[in-house]
Formats: sequence, structure tokens, C-alpha cells
Amino acid sequence: MTKSHPIAGPGSATIATIADEVGVSVTTVSKVLNGRSDVAADTRARVEASLERHRYRRRSKRQPTGAGQIDLVFHEFNAAWSMEIIRGVEAVTATANVDVLLSQLGGDHRPAQPWLDGVLTRRPLGVLLVLCNLTEPQHQQLQRQLVPVVVVDTDSATSAPVPTVGSNNWNGGLLATRHLLELGHRRIALISGPEDVLCSRARAAGFQFAHDEVGVPVDPDLVRYGSFYVDAGYGHGMELLTLPDRPTAIFAGSDMQAMGVLRAAWQLGLNVPRELSVIGYDNLPVAAWTVPALTTINQPLRDMAGTATQMLLDLARGVGLSTSRVDLVTELVVRESTAPPAHPR
Amino acid sequence: MTKSHPIAGPGSATIATIADEVGVSVTTVSKVLNGRSDVAADTRARVEASLERHRYRRRSKRQPTGAGQIDLVFHEFNAAWSMEIIRGVEAVTATANVDVLLSQLGGDHRPAQPWLDGVLTRRPLGVLLVLCNLTEPQHQQLQRQLVPVVVVDTDSATSAPVPTVGSNNWNGGLLATRHLLELGHRRIALISGPEDVLCSRARAAGFQFAHDEVGVPVDPDLVRYGSFYVDAGYGHGMELLTLPDRPTAIFAGSDMQAMGVLRAAWQLGLNVPRELSVIGYDNLPVAAWTVPALTTINQPLRDMAGTATQMLLDLARGVGLSTSRVDLVTELVVRESTAPPAHPR
Repeated sequence: MTKSHPIAGPGSATIATIADEVGVSVTTVSKVLNGRSDVAADTRARVEASLERHRYRRRSKRQPTGAGQIDLVFHEFNAAWSMEIIRGVEAVTATANVDVLLSQLGGDHRPAQPWLDGVLTRRPLGVLLVLCNLTEPQHQQLQRQLVPVVVVDTDSATSAPVPTVGSNNWNGGLLATRHLLELGHRRIALISGPEDVLCSRARAAGFQFAHDEVGVPVDPDLVRYGSFYVDAGYGHGMELLTLPDRPTAIFAGSDMQAMGVLRAAWQLGLNVPRELSVIGYDNLPVAAWTVPALTTINQPLRDMAGTATQMLLDLARGVGLSTSRVDLVTELVVRESTAPPAHPR
Repeated sequence: MTKSHPIAGPGSATIATIADEVGVSVTTVSKVLNGRSDVAADTRARVEASLERHRYRRRSKRQPTGAGQIDLVFHEFNAAWSMEIIRGVEAVTATANVDVLLSQLGGDHRPAQPWLDGVLTRRPLGVLLVLCNLTEPQHQQLQRQLVPVVVVDTDSATSAPVPTVGSNNWNGGLLATRHLLELGHRRIALISGPEDVLCSRARAAGFQFAHDEVGVPVDPDLVRYGSFYVDAGYGHGMELLTLPDRPTAIFAGSDMQAMGVLRAAWQLGLNVPRELSVIGYDNLPVAAWTVPALTTINQPLRDMAGTATQMLLDLARGVGLSTSRVDLVTELVVRESTAPPAHPR
């Protein structure tokens, strides 16, 4: 049985206190802290519980191998989108003389434990997660080693108390839809992102709200969800544009999806914007060069990444954050792919 | 004056031998080896010369902070292109359990000394350079610390004895031009990359060769050089397509340039491929989704990056390379943007 120790105050416990309380050696506690696997599961659990109860924080100033580095972790690489994030991060780290360690989770939204063990061994200045997050125990493990975490996410809300930088998706959905309604469109389709991602539903809510504002009903048949890639835009675009009563405008969930819609329209011989208005989302550099150039919602990806990186470096220097949740502003960018409908209904 | 020491054989000298020969302390030699700046220039030069003469190689097995990491260095980030390289690298490092440290040189083709000093301090498993290279002294500094270097370059030739992975640009230029000539085009424009980059001139040489094969003269007025970005394709495209005797086909130096040409043609009301054939280069994922989809030359960027990474990891493990210069094969990919000319001349 573990001995009972009074808790002297958060962060005041040493490794020896923990070892003494659990009844194991200092080496064993150290192994647990460093994410080593050669500790029995039962022992590990008892050490973890004691560390948590004492809110143990590392105090040693030993130079970790990850000094001067941050980890930048994507759930997956998505060509132009990821590169905007990388550029935003790099702009901040280059001036701060900090190196960036890049990895991706192959589509998973939670890193696997071996990745975390690697981080615990290296102890970087901090970890920047893009469209992914840690489990609560993983967060605690990093916290104990004083490795701060910041998340870049397009979700407009997060429950965990992790500093997060996002953008206002509901507002983006509202702006795009208002633009189309103001042009006179009354039959507008929405192709949002995956339905299980909050940002997709936030944009759809903005889409609905804009309709409600002017008393135009939304046809549920015109609301679709899919991946953010070109092929989803193409597939849904083809389906929507071959409906007997096709929409006069399509609001796509990403510029890539919008490219797919442009291609579908082109194959069906529909002129954009004369016979169909198309609006994208993100404002990637390529959006200015499509044929026709895309009207889109600017999601300030580089700024989001730069802001998140600065927050991470501040946390690493022990500077407290004034706020742990920042949403940057989305804006409408009008180019060539939207116009009044040919035959207003 | 330095004392004269017989050279016992490459790599047999110790730091003490060097210090003794140059007449400085062991600490000073160590500082030079580790890229520290607090050594007088004159002393540094004499130490460097002695190290080079003895072909000094580090023997200590001290665990460097860069163990398990490679440095991936771009001359600059170019959205879709760079991401293909990153994906190719990551596919190899992920299975090898190696971390990737990402940086870019802001457009320079040679890293600055502070970057190199950082590498010498960290001693990563190796350094992978993309479209950039080191000076000869920089190469020697890394060699002494047993940090191997591999270059990914589209140049079809490199003089330095650095392992390099590229692709066959001359062949790419030949294949693209033959395709257009076989379709019946006789007035073909070339927009290549920057003229001071060998790959641009290699492709232009392939373009010329294909014309010579069938005895069709090249109009020098139709051969242009520019950056690989969309705007260069757009600018040159506009100029070429408003010539009194405009070309019936344009071979662009990149898919991004080709997108610029597609946009210029669209603005001028020219139908692609009916009135103008356009062929790109690289075969980026986006090439399948332009309107119309691009005929292009596949440059296997992911494979090039993967091959280079594998070479680097082999070198880091002390495995000799069977060859230090690999050019991967380029291939023609026919899509929708090329067709016979409307009025063969």
C-alpha cells in the first residue's frame, strides 16, 4: 500500500517524494516521467497517480535534446493548405532562431504513444498540433515535463483547456451565403467538409442563418458533406448540377472542392459565373489563378499558424497567455466566379 | 610556424595531433570543429588547413542532440512542389523512425554559416538539400563531423562529388516537344524556368533536339525563360498569344506556369486545346484538376525525395552507395490540354 503524504502545494514535490510515497525507486519514477516502456503497467499507473496528485513539475535545468526545437504535427499533409501553415510557422521560428521538427499522423487525429514517448525523451520547446489533439493523459505527461502544447484548429470551439488558434467558421459561412443571396440567388447548394468536423457544421449553421435572415428556405437536398479534397467537390458538384432543378450557386467547403465544382461545371458545359456561381473557402494562392478566378472566404492560415507559434514560444519562455482561445477573422474575397443568377427564381 | 608532421594515413589524426601541429590548444581545435565563432580567423584557417591535410574525421561516439534526425533544407517553399518533396521524405523517415527538421533559405541557394554552425552543434544523421548546395568548405566541415549530405536537384548534372538525385530534364523536354510535333504543331513556344538554372536549359536543349529530329526550325522569339510560378506563365503566355503570328502550342516549364498560360488563353477567349495546346511540367496533383486537365511531364518528385532520403540514411549507417548520381525517369502524361492544331501551318 502507498503511504499517505500531505500535499505541500502544487509543484513542490520532488521525484524522491513521489518514489517514497509509491514505494518504488527514484529511477522508476524517472523512467515513468521520461516515457520509458520498461516499467510494469501497474507500477506506472501508481506513479502516474501520485505525480498527478502532487501536480509534479520537472525542475531540472538539464539541457534536453529538443532545446531550440518545436514539434509541428499535422494529422495529414494536404498540399497547399499544409504549406500555408508551414510558412506561417516558419516565419516566426526563423526570426526566433528555433528549429521545426515536422511530422504527420497519417490521417489520425490523436498521436500514438510512441510519438509521445519520443517527445518526452527529446523535450522540445513545445508542440504545435494542426487539426489533431492529445488525449488528457498525454496532455498531463507533457505538462509534467513542462512541454507546452498549442493547437491550430478550424473548429470554432474546443472543450479541453489547451491554447487553440482557429478562425470564425460560422462567420465565414454567413459571409459567403450573404454574398450569394445579395446577388439574387435563391437556390444555393452547400458542399461542406466532413460532417463529423465541427468547422463544417459551423459553416453550415452560418449558411442556414443567412437564409433565415432574409426568409429564404434552405432545400435540405442541396446541403452536402464530404472531404475537403478536389474529388469530393467534383463528385457532389456533378450530382448537384445534374438535378432536375439544379442550384444557381454552390458554396464549397474549400478552394480545392471549388476547383472540383468548376471542373464539373466545365464538363457539363455550364458557364461560370453566367450560369453558375461558385464560391470557395480558404483563399489559397491557387484561388487567384483558377479559370475563372475564385470568389472565396479568406481563412488566414499563415496568420493562424504564426499566432499559434508565438503563443507556443511565449509559453516555453514561461510567459503567461492573455487568452488561450483565439479565433482570427474570416473575410469575403470577391473575384470572378460569382455573379447574379441568369434567371432569378 | 607550424611543425611538420608525417601524415600517418587518412583519418588517423587525433585532435591532439592537430593541436600539436598548429601550435594551439586542444580546446581551440575543438572549437573550430564545432563551428564556434570565438576563434581568430587566422588561427581558424591554420587549424582548418591541418584538419584537411590529415583528413581528420571525428571518432567520438558521444550522442549528438541531432541523433535520429535529418535536416531537410529547401531554398524556398513552393506550395505544391515542396509538399511533394516533403511527402516523399516523410514516407521513408516515418518507417525508419527518423525525425525531420525542416528549414528554408528564403530563396538563397547556399545556406549561411549560422545555419551550418547549428548543424555542426546538433550533428543530425544527415542533411538533405533541395535545390540548394553547400560551398566546398561547408562540405568539408560536415564531412569532418561525419554528417552526410545528399542533394535533390532537377539539374541534370552537378560537378561536386555530392550524392545527388534528380530527373532527366533533357528527356522531359524532348518528350513534351515530340508530343506536340507529332500532333502536327509547327509553331511551338517554350516557357522554361530561370535561364541560370541548368534544368531550364536542359529542357530547352531537348526542345531544340526534338525540332531538329524532324527538321522543323525553332523561332527564337518563341523561347522564353522565367520563374516557375503562375505569374511568369501568365505574363509570357499573354505576350506570346498576342503576337501577330501566335504559337499554336505552348510548352510550359511547370504546371504552375501552365496554369498561368491557361488563364491567359481564357482571358483572350482562346479555346484550349482547340485553338491552343498547352503542356506543363511536374505532374503535380493539381494538374489533373485544371480546366482543361493538363497534359504534362511527370517528374517523380516523391520518388526523387524518397530515393535521396534512403541514400542519406544509408550513408548515415556507414553503408556505401553504389552510385552517387541518380536521375529518375520523366514521362509524358496526356490529358485534355493538347490536340492537333486547328489550322496546321
